[in-house]
Amino acid sequence: MPPTDKIESAEAMPEVSGNTSEECVAAVDIGGTSLRIALADMTGSVLAERSASTVGVREAAAVIETIREGILGLLEQSGRSRGHLRAVAAGAPGITDVDAGVVVATSYLMGWRRVPLRDLLEKGLGVRAAVENDVNLGAIGEQWRGAARNVRDFVFLAIGTGVGAGIVLDGEIFRGTGWMAGEIGYMLVPGTSTDPVADGDAGNLENLIGGEGIRAQWQRLWDAGGIVLPRDLRATEVFDQARAGSLSADSVLQRSARMLGFAIYNMWLMFNCPLFVLGGSVGMHPALLEAAQTYLRELCGEAGPDLATSSLGTQAQLTGAVRLAIDRANAD
Amino acid sequence: MPPTDKIESAEAMPEVSGNTSEECVAAVDIGGTSLRIALADMTGSVLAERSASTVGVREAAAVIETIREGILGLLEQSGRSRGHLRAVAAGAPGITDVDAGVVVATSYLMGWRRVPLRDLLEKGLGVRAAVENDVNLGAIGEQWRGAARNVRDFVFLAIGTGVGAGIVLDGEIFRGTGWMAGEIGYMLVPGTSTDPVADGDAGNLENLIGGEGIRAQWQRLWDAGGIVLPRDLRATEVFDQARAGSLSADSVLQRSARMLGFAIYNMWLMFNCPLFVLGGSVGMHPALLEAAQTYLRELCGEAGPDLATSSLGTQAQLTGAVRLAIDRANAD
Repeated sequence: MPPTDKIESAEAMPEVSGNTSEECVAAVDIGGTSLRIALADMTGSVLAERSASTVGVREAAAVIETIREGILGLLEQSGRSRGHLRAVAAGAPGITDVDAGVVVATSYLMGWRRVPLRDLLEKGLGVRAAVENDVNLGAIGEQWRGAARNVRDFVFLAIGTGVGAGIVLDGEIFRGTGWMAGEIGYMLVPGTSTDPVADGDAGNLENLIGGEGIRAQWQRLWDAGGIVLPRDLRATEVFDQARAGSLSADSVLQRSARMLGFAIYNMWLMFNCPLFVLGGSVGMHPALLEAAQTYLRELCGEAGPDLATSSLGTQAQLTGAVRLAIDRANAD
Repeated sequence: MPPTDKIESAEAMPEVSGNTSEECVAAVDIGGTSLRIALADMTGSVLAERSASTVGVREAAAVIETIREGILGLLEQSGRSRGHLRAVAAGAPGITDVDAGVVVATSYLMGWRRVPLRDLLEKGLGVRAAVENDVNLGAIGEQWRGAARNVRDFVFLAIGTGVGAGIVLDGEIFRGTGWMAGEIGYMLVPGTSTDPVADGDAGNLENLIGGEGIRAQWQRLWDAGGIVLPRDLRATEVFDQARAGSLSADSVLQRSARMLGFAIYNMWLMFNCPLFVLGGSVGMHPALLEAAQTYLRELCGEAGPDLATSSLGTQAQLTGAVRLAIDRANAD
């Protein structure tokens, strides 16, 4: 992705209203349980934001309607009219064909299959739309305004409930022939199961470093007895307890960090990129980064890549969607 | 890499002699123990070939002299003069900076470090030169005239004594920031050691699927007793014996094939490419391909990539070098 010249040169933009400073784009991050929408001006500054639940929502039409209502509300809130909206970009949590604008498959949203999200958004909102995989949007966000500014080759690792990678090579998102590049939740490293994964199940690596996997490891330890902390800890709470001195919590942390170190090492061997950015609620925990870094250094020595925490945090995907929407607005 | 238009349109080539049909390029494959040289016409047809030993050779100047003598001999043999030679391309078995034309490091050739191979070749031969990693040349060869014709994204796996990958994405070799992309001999998969590898030692995966690793596994089995076959079998002979019904040989084959299946699966998750081409003396054994395919299918199901054997075999690297030399000759 080129730097921000395009975005900052307002004269290059076709006008849709007399006052270009009122022009804006909408960014949408469709998650498994909620949907976030931001309105941003043409330099990328966020004007207003809101969220809505997607729990139990299956119909794409219902999601589009929620997005439409949300954007109209944000336009009103920021004193803009529909004519000021130039484009919308949405991130989806699944395999996304960005050329066709189609969400090919996702295990969220009650299992969308081949949903023509871009066309639905264009029809529903009457503006240009673009769609992208949500982890790839996180990578775009980090590259534009986050921890990977001015880095041509890097991998953004989103580690939350699920685990995925957004791969940037020669400055561009690398998506693969079937739009599935970076599905690292299924990676096999020493210590993972080697069993084939059934459709919809968590991947072998995800089971060890994803939020649900860490929680499950903690509960298995707890069930085995001898632990004084509560049984129902979230992954980040397990890591907090590890930092606070709990040896049992630390054993879970170390195991996850070691597997993560193996996975990053393997990716580094493949891509030979100088930077890995850790994002997602689990991935951003400092204890995980520190421990993974130790394991990675053992393997790579001095030649290894840098590990950095996402500097955009929970805003990474939405920031990437803002950038994508601006690019879509400015495309020929 | 674009298709062969460039190569077939003779009118686009600057002439260096009155008779363009006499023009030619030289391709060199510098190996750990031998050096192969081919002379080819400007359509890529090989005119003549020879090889020389590199055992005990350390000085780059001595290697250049061997190459120079070899090329002069081939020119004479094919009834051509030095003026007909348009360019030379050489593949080196190590980390190669193709922009600077430098072999950064190799564990062969008694450990070359920062050898300016391109400049040395240009000086020694008085023509344009290009250098590339030898496994990448194998990938270029397969893409041009081998098993990966018309495939935009694929990985060429060279499995011989060592193990490496040549990665082609969007039709171009992907080399990584430090020219080391595809160093899969070090990959960690279930069953490999997780110990850090000392400088110059074989990688964790290489130890299990490389020729020397397979030989060592066989010898450990043999030392443990109860095996009627000879102790000193090469990797391909172990695979032959597995096909002939030896259960102990089959156990080595299955272990290697399973690790190879894991490694290809991991690469497929990263690159999501539709094709993997197996080359190198060990990689081309049909028993390994068959068994690896079985393990890979278990993991990927129907969605997985195709596995194919190199169709150029031992000529893959040299064919890639011919292509690189022709491109170098025709560059502006």
